[in-house]
Amino acid sequence: MPADFEAMWRDLAPVGRSSSSGGYFRQPFTAPERELDAWFAEQCAARGLEVERDRFGNTVAWWRPPGAAGPAVLTGSHLDSVLDGGAYDGPLGVVSALAAVDVLRDRGVTPSRPIGVGVFVEEEGSRFGLACLGSRLATGATDWATARALTDRAGVAVEDALADVARGEADLLRDVGCFVELHVEQGRDLVDRDVAVGAASGIWPHGRYRFAFTGEANHAGTTRMEDRRDPMLTYATTVLAAGERARRAGQRATFGRLDVRPNGTNAVPSAVTAWFDARAETAEQLDALLADVERQAQERAGRDGTGLTVTPESVSGAVHFDAELTSRIAGPHGWPVIPTMAGHDAGVLSAAGIPTAMLFVRNPTGVSHSPDEHAETVDCLAGVAALADTLAELAA
Amino acid sequence: MPADFEAMWRDLAPVGRSSSSGGYFRQPFTAPERELDAWFAEQCAARGLEVERDRFGNTVAWWRPPGAAGPAVLTGSHLDSVLDGGAYDGPLGVVSALAAVDVLRDRGVTPSRPIGVGVFVEEEGSRFGLACLGSRLATGATDWATARALTDRAGVAVEDALADVARGEADLLRDVGCFVELHVEQGRDLVDRDVAVGAASGIWPHGRYRFAFTGEANHAGTTRMEDRRDPMLTYATTVLAAGERARRAGQRATFGRLDVRPNGTNAVPSAVTAWFDARAETAEQLDALLADVERQAQERAGRDGTGLTVTPESVSGAVHFDAELTSRIAGPHGWPVIPTMAGHDAGVLSAAGIPTAMLFVRNPTGVSHSPDEHAETVDCLAGVAALADTLAELAA
Repeated sequence: MPADFEAMWRDLAPVGRSSSSGGYFRQPFTAPERELDAWFAEQCAARGLEVERDRFGNTVAWWRPPGAAGPAVLTGSHLDSVLDGGAYDGPLGVVSALAAVDVLRDRGVTPSRPIGVGVFVEEEGSRFGLACLGSRLATGATDWATARALTDRAGVAVEDALADVARGEADLLRDVGCFVELHVEQGRDLVDRDVAVGAASGIWPHGRYRFAFTGEANHAGTTRMEDRRDPMLTYATTVLAAGERARRAGQRATFGRLDVRPNGTNAVPSAVTAWFDARAETAEQLDALLADVERQAQERAGRDGTGLTVTPESVSGAVHFDAELTSRIAGPHGWPVIPTMAGHDAGVLSAAGIPTAMLFVRNPTGVSHSPDEHAETVDCLAGVAALADTLAELAA
Repeated sequence: MPADFEAMWRDLAPVGRSSSSGGYFRQPFTAPERELDAWFAEQCAARGLEVERDRFGNTVAWWRPPGAAGPAVLTGSHLDSVLDGGAYDGPLGVVSALAAVDVLRDRGVTPSRPIGVGVFVEEEGSRFGLACLGSRLATGATDWATARALTDRAGVAVEDALADVARGEADLLRDVGCFVELHVEQGRDLVDRDVAVGAASGIWPHGRYRFAFTGEANHAGTTRMEDRRDPMLTYATTVLAAGERARRAGQRATFGRLDVRPNGTNAVPSAVTAWFDARAETAEQLDALLADVERQAQERAGRDGTGLTVTPESVSGAVHFDAELTSRIAGPHGWPVIPTMAGHDAGVLSAAGIPTAMLFVRNPTGVSHSPDEHAETVDCLAGVAALADTLAELAA
């Protein structure tokens, strides 16, 4: 008998956890994330699921009862985390999928279609900068020639990081008829509605843009303020302009990652590289947000004598999940259908033409991408039951 | 016959130089800086100078001709650099001192007092955060109990970094009657005056303060702007407030070093730690500058829901170099006497009661703490001649 949800959750709790912050560091192809990969393979073996891998590091474990045929029902999520992230973002969807298989078997359900439990690599983009890297490669949204050369902060390329990873040759999505991802909610919509489970209507368009500010290194004591070309001043102006612009428009603007050179106390910096995360309800609004922030940054750069180049690293258009599929899942249970501003592998599969839906599990504080991210066990179990119902319906 | 100035300069050129930026990384007790230490010992041995070391890693090489007695004349500077620094800041004073000894011997001068060539460690504070660490320890301005536990960015303590370093038991300053440090100018005063060499009147008070901004990590997409506690916004406001305040007052304010946690693109940061380098003409003005910047930062923190603690890491009061000594050196040659905003070991020795003066060598662009830092060889040779004249005068 495979372990139940709570036992699996206890298995994962210590893996990649920082003892100082309590947050998780499960970057793709690092030891903690590989430990999760091995754990997943063990859990699948214990359930008699057949593990397939593609050449990008993605995995799907298949439950194919004798006689099961036709387009498969895929569920699952990811096991990687942001830097110092929470326990639920990703793993909740994978553990719930395995637990849902257990529930269906306990109920004596034999699906007439194959059910797959998928794990996509580097969903967060925390190592190589491109979010949903695994699902982008699996769907062809990003080609291998582009992805292979992406590097992490230490200069290691995707191709080299993958060299020691268990891989196969499968096209994991070849027989997939629909995809349903369960995920912890990353806002407070379900809390406000006082329900444990909801479905997603779609994902806001969002993008990551690298702002490279350049100036001139100089002595922090002897260089007069008016003689400086200090990129930190241009950067600071840009941060405030972006925050103010997004706040007024009900959008999102974040500068959470920085690289300062030479990063010495007594030197005016020569370069500040900053990553801008921007999100808005429509693609037009997202473009306008970026354009406004870049214009204000360039104006200040002109006054500071600094340079600025802006490079998009990943831009995702609006996602509208399959309305019929979502209605079929959520309607009978009365689950609310709510939008999200967070990217997911489900968005990538949806954009690739696979009918896709998402289930959310209530997050009591709405906090995510943080050690404080949380979901109550009772709500997680409600999510498992909801996913089991969904799979039973779709694979019937 | 020991090598001359230009040959010594060629020896040093490749040590610790970055092939990408052309700047120097000569952090204390790292391989490049230890190579310079070994080179210095070889140069001293070739000249028959007697090398003494203290337990902090500082070195003085003594020229004590038979019969030389009385208070010694000390010169020298430092061999460490800021991160990605220039070739001249520090090494010019050490190489010029050795070359000045050669000049005096060529002239047939036999000093009646000992002449010492000193090298003080960690002048820049680029590794352990406390500028002039070596001279502070040698003079007692900082005690060993405080210094031993200072750590670098990798967590290595001063005490452990020193474990493998050549050291001795000497009190290097016990017989020192006066100190003269030669240094590349770090501004454009001598260029504007069209002279190759000048002397320093004093050093502005200056300090380094650690600003620790704290907030709450959260998801960059799902967290509404008004629900965030984002320390990057508070930091950005502080940078602009400091720059504007210092510009209006003719002072200096720099934020050149940052540490962002978790430093991920799609997470609101939980913490931004920033180092503030502030300088003003008087201690009162410096205090007021810091107080104004901190007040504006705290006001913004109140609005952002973030926290801020400010910790002074090193604060140096105003230094007025010995007027009589400076006049005795500079007067006969007509060298201008100019202030500087940069800290030096000379400031620490002066504050410890040792009569101290400084010589500056013209910097054609004024750029310093940068790979672009430069001095023309003809001006460096004028500096060597000036230092030789000075030592001959003081050690006569």
